[in-house]
Amino acid sequence: MKIGVFDSGIGGITVLGELRRSFPSVEYVYLGDTAHVPYGTRSAAQIRQLSADCARVLKSTGIDALVVACNTSSSLALDAICDVMGEVPVFDVVGPGVEAAKAARRKCGGSRATVLVLATRATIRSHAYGKALGANVIEQECPLLVPMIEEGWLDHPVLHRTIKEYVGAYARAGRPGVALLACTHYPWIHAAFERALPGWMIVNSAQAVARSLARSGIARKLRVRGKSRAGRVQWIFTDPDAVPAMARDG
Amino acid sequence: MKIGVFDSGIGGITVLGELRRSFPSVEYVYLGDTAHVPYGTRSAAQIRQLSADCARVLKSTGIDALVVACNTSSSLALDAICDVMGEVPVFDVVGPGVEAAKAARRKCGGSRATVLVLATRATIRSHAYGKALGANVIEQECPLLVPMIEEGWLDHPVLHRTIKEYVGAYARAGRPGVALLACTHYPWIHAAFERALPGWMIVNSAQAVARSLARSGIARKLRVRGKSRAGRVQWIFTDPDAVPAMARDG
Repeated sequence: MKIGVFDSGIGGITVLGELRRSFPSVEYVYLGDTAHVPYGTRSAAQIRQLSADCARVLKSTGIDALVVACNTSSSLALDAICDVMGEVPVFDVVGPGVEAAKAARRKCGGSRATVLVLATRATIRSHAYGKALGANVIEQECPLLVPMIEEGWLDHPVLHRTIKEYVGAYARAGRPGVALLACTHYPWIHAAFERALPGWMIVNSAQAVARSLARSGIARKLRVRGKSRAGRVQWIFTDPDAVPAMARDG
Repeated sequence: MKIGVFDSGIGGITVLGELRRSFPSVEYVYLGDTAHVPYGTRSAAQIRQLSADCARVLKSTGIDALVVACNTSSSLALDAICDVMGEVPVFDVVGPGVEAAKAARRKCGGSRATVLVLATRATIRSHAYGKALGANVIEQECPLLVPMIEEGWLDHPVLHRTIKEYVGAYARAGRPGVALLACTHYPWIHAAFERALPGWMIVNSAQAVARSLARSGIARKLRVRGKSRAGRVQWIFTDPDAVPAMARDG
């Protein structure tokens, strides 16, 4: 069993980690499109083109399933990716993200609790989360966070000041709710969001993605043990000489 | 007479402005590679590929000369661009930038004055400026400035804090020297550099680029008046739906 995991950069590594924890005997191929990161400030047409190109590369490696571990691609290019993949099952992060936010909301006062969706500009403008979550949802774009995370500024004064710019008004107004990190890069800076949003429940889609695979038609194959290469990750970066240190260490 | 001006994003607009001031009767084609900005954090191979692709697009518009208004491309891809352009003369920004720094250094105490070269990671790692300027040169990469400028954060606390991170140590230590903005995006935030480097002489290559054209073999043609379309700019963006507001206003 071989699963492809795709992101614009190193964000999908947060999802890959959760998948490896849940399905340790599976083989993985991770593709980071470092030649084109960040996706979130590009147009829908460009995001669809780039995502389809990456899907083609992953399909050629013979994967049995694809996890689109990028909210921007999941929100804007899922149909284009599915066209490329044909019979190969495709899992995205939007559905699991919505599920994670709803579960947190139930623990946090029910449908009257605010859900603050934090994502790239393209994801926010697609309103994929807003439509799925309904009332009491705030959608906030955070376009500079992916470049800072790719730069490794995970606990830097500039990062904290930037997050304050994006979420400070919500932290000050009203009572705490649920903050959904709707970009797979953002779990890298979970602690920074906790600091900026005291009292808020901060969730992401990584665990829910693993659950969606476990409930799917390929569930049985994910549990099969054995195979000498099991658990390994093959890394593909479209610009191999421009990979952040965090990914090289991982 | 038609001149092509090329940059990864909106940085080259600072050069275009200087060219239009110097040669108002020329027609311009501006290409911003908004589908791939920023260049400065990508590998040399990727930068060469992207730059050659853009040169091909500009060549097809029938330009009489090309100005590579991007320090990253000028430092790493000039030969690849010249290969594409063939007989069409190509002007870059590194030579003019070196000229501007040397002129400022003469006013600033001569060769013992420090020159602080500020640029993208790829430009700094090419050492194009360090080699040309010789002793007493400090090369400092500033990878997050292009994303912030493209985002329009030109006078934002986050921008000021980021610049302090990059140049604060030089501002505190030793006596002021010359700061060369070796990225055509940086003149957009000239005032922010002045604030971070009090007493320093801050220069960029835009005026020197216009001078290098005026001294070249095409100088006579640049002065010719007439033509109904003269002075106009044709704008090409590789991702037309992802163009920063500043460029749309320009």
